[in-house]
Amino acid sequence: MTRRVGILGGGQLARMMALAGLPLGLRFSLLDPAPDACAGQLAPLRKADWNDTQALAAFAESIDIATFDFENVPAASLDVLAARVPAWPGRDALATAQDRLVEKTRFNALGIPTPGFMAVDDRAGLDAAARALGLPAILKTRRLGYDGKGQFRLRGEADLDAAWAALGEQAPRVGLILEAFVPFRRELSVVAVRSRTGEFAAWPITENWHVEGVLSASLAPADVPEPLAREAIGHARRLADSLDYVGVFALELFDAGDRLLANEMAPRVHNSGHWTIEGARTSQFENHLRAILGWPLGDTGARAVSCMLNFLGEVPEAAAALAVPGLHLHDYGKAPRAGRKVGHATLCADTAEELVQGLERAGQALGRMAQVAPVVEKLRSC
Amino acid sequence: MTRRVGILGGGQLARMMALAGLPLGLRFSLLDPAPDACAGQLAPLRKADWNDTQALAAFAESIDIATFDFENVPAASLDVLAARVPAWPGRDALATAQDRLVEKTRFNALGIPTPGFMAVDDRAGLDAAARALGLPAILKTRRLGYDGKGQFRLRGEADLDAAWAALGEQAPRVGLILEAFVPFRRELSVVAVRSRTGEFAAWPITENWHVEGVLSASLAPADVPEPLAREAIGHARRLADSLDYVGVFALELFDAGDRLLANEMAPRVHNSGHWTIEGARTSQFENHLRAILGWPLGDTGARAVSCMLNFLGEVPEAAAALAVPGLHLHDYGKAPRAGRKVGHATLCADTAEELVQGLERAGQALGRMAQVAPVVEKLRSC
Repeated sequence: MTRRVGILGGGQLARMMALAGLPLGLRFSLLDPAPDACAGQLAPLRKADWNDTQALAAFAESIDIATFDFENVPAASLDVLAARVPAWPGRDALATAQDRLVEKTRFNALGIPTPGFMAVDDRAGLDAAARALGLPAILKTRRLGYDGKGQFRLRGEADLDAAWAALGEQAPRVGLILEAFVPFRRELSVVAVRSRTGEFAAWPITENWHVEGVLSASLAPADVPEPLAREAIGHARRLADSLDYVGVFALELFDAGDRLLANEMAPRVHNSGHWTIEGARTSQFENHLRAILGWPLGDTGARAVSCMLNFLGEVPEAAAALAVPGLHLHDYGKAPRAGRKVGHATLCADTAEELVQGLERAGQALGRMAQVAPVVEKLRSC
Repeated sequence: MTRRVGILGGGQLARMMALAGLPLGLRFSLLDPAPDACAGQLAPLRKADWNDTQALAAFAESIDIATFDFENVPAASLDVLAARVPAWPGRDALATAQDRLVEKTRFNALGIPTPGFMAVDDRAGLDAAARALGLPAILKTRRLGYDGKGQFRLRGEADLDAAWAALGEQAPRVGLILEAFVPFRRELSVVAVRSRTGEFAAWPITENWHVEGVLSASLAPADVPEPLAREAIGHARRLADSLDYVGVFALELFDAGDRLLANEMAPRVHNSGHWTIEGARTSQFENHLRAILGWPLGDTGARAVSCMLNFLGEVPEAAAALAVPGLHLHDYGKAPRAGRKVGHATLCADTAEELVQGLERAGQALGRMAQVAPVVEKLRSC
């Protein structure tokens, strides 16, 4: 009987996965280079570097199945585990998601439209790509990008030198890609899950607001016309099937009005799916575990309406937060640090009107009016 | 800032409390005589006997606030902690709940009716109590009773000798009480919470089914006429206020048709409140922590309808259980053992009709038709 789950990475995603899996009778252990990784507060943590093959092999001996909470874990590390125990999501999915060029090429091959893009290998390549795609555009590293780092936005030709100065030296090591800038109305995500048995399910589509490239708020279910929602979930399903994907993943989309353009996929539980802990009948964390264990998936339906607010830097005082009706607090047990994801709150309500009230109250109580404002505006306009 | 919560007892109640409190940013540690107590799978566990004063004092040094998951923890053990950190629920509540005679005397003094009862100090006292209360009646130990142990049911005078033979020798040590047997229609419980600030809240009343003295199933909200529900919650509130109670507690009641009779109180989170994890807007475990920390209480309203099924002896296969729509599994991570509480499931549904379907499906899938039958019958009769 498979019972011991090993997680590469011991951050908040591993932590919430363990919180969801302990009631299912699972035992967790973690491997992370940081000795104080926050999931270590509730599961044994082995401190090791990602390339410490011996530590990875020993870790594999202590578990029945492996997964990860971090998409930039080296594929070679996963290989060490996969040689010994089932490891999901698989290498193919990880490798695809780790390279923007491979990822977007795959999207297009599956009929999933994206903004235009071109590989950039050298300075001449950047000029050529800028001419072909037009400007504005965004120069990005192909690999190891995370939450807006490793990106440079070009408004016009005058920025070409600065862009190359910023990222050019990374071209030989991690590769570069130029992506056309497409004006979009909003950012959506599909959080979905596919099991070892091939069973597939998606949560209602989520609308997301970012600040400086980092997720700030998510609203679910997003107000999306049914044909558009079907299209988005169809994209996610084709992608998962083509990768023989196992586990939860997120597909980030731009809503360009008449069409949806895929931005990227995250091969793991995702920040824009945190609302599912209280807002859906089964959370993304529980369904990720069900999926990798080959157990039946749980109902991904929304209970009603929810809004997730990220806490960066520090978590508000619990007593103030918990005074807001319908607010569910998630403090990751991390030390405060500017810009660090240290917690989130999910506000649940039976109606959009009630959610607006909750958000306004939360905004006031926590001094976060600017964070809740775009969500309130959206809810009022529906 | 109070953050480190110490729990006396490391069983499933401590485990579910930690699962609820970790997202609030709390850290947990446990003290239990059993080195393999199941909450130790997610929080550091100190193995010590209840009367190990030195260990208790050292434990107190490592925490900011104390609570317990077991109402038979000696009051003296709690005193060792309370001399060093806030400890809730307080000694008064614990001492009251640990002695059936003190407890029932207090109920009556507060205007909370109970079945008739009399202290029994010796064999002559048993005869006198039997004459005064009439038979059938139940002879119980005053202290250390738990889940139907330490009880003897007398059907008539012919049972007096056998009852005394079974329990008489315990009279000098823990005392005995004879309780009149009152025919009742059903067993109800009020699970309620009172905060350090005096704030009080109760979950909807729960109907319970026992098998051989151990809880088998709970249905919430119970179908109770509004005046009866108000009366029951009024009883709970008077009791809590009179004890200056802090934390969650359960008041078990017999529904004798025209009136409610109090059976006993449990000064802790309670098995008949497990449905609140998914079935209510705030669980009993989270609200217990909010209460002892002096934080605002969360909404105790039910989401819809729920039924909790206890698993004794062993937990069903996860894959089978999770195939039942709306079923939430709670495996306590304990080794199987006949009669041991090792897990539970909560079925949630939007309507009673849907809950009936879920229960029938669960009964079939898990081979538990007898367990679900009385709940199904009750739901059909409403």
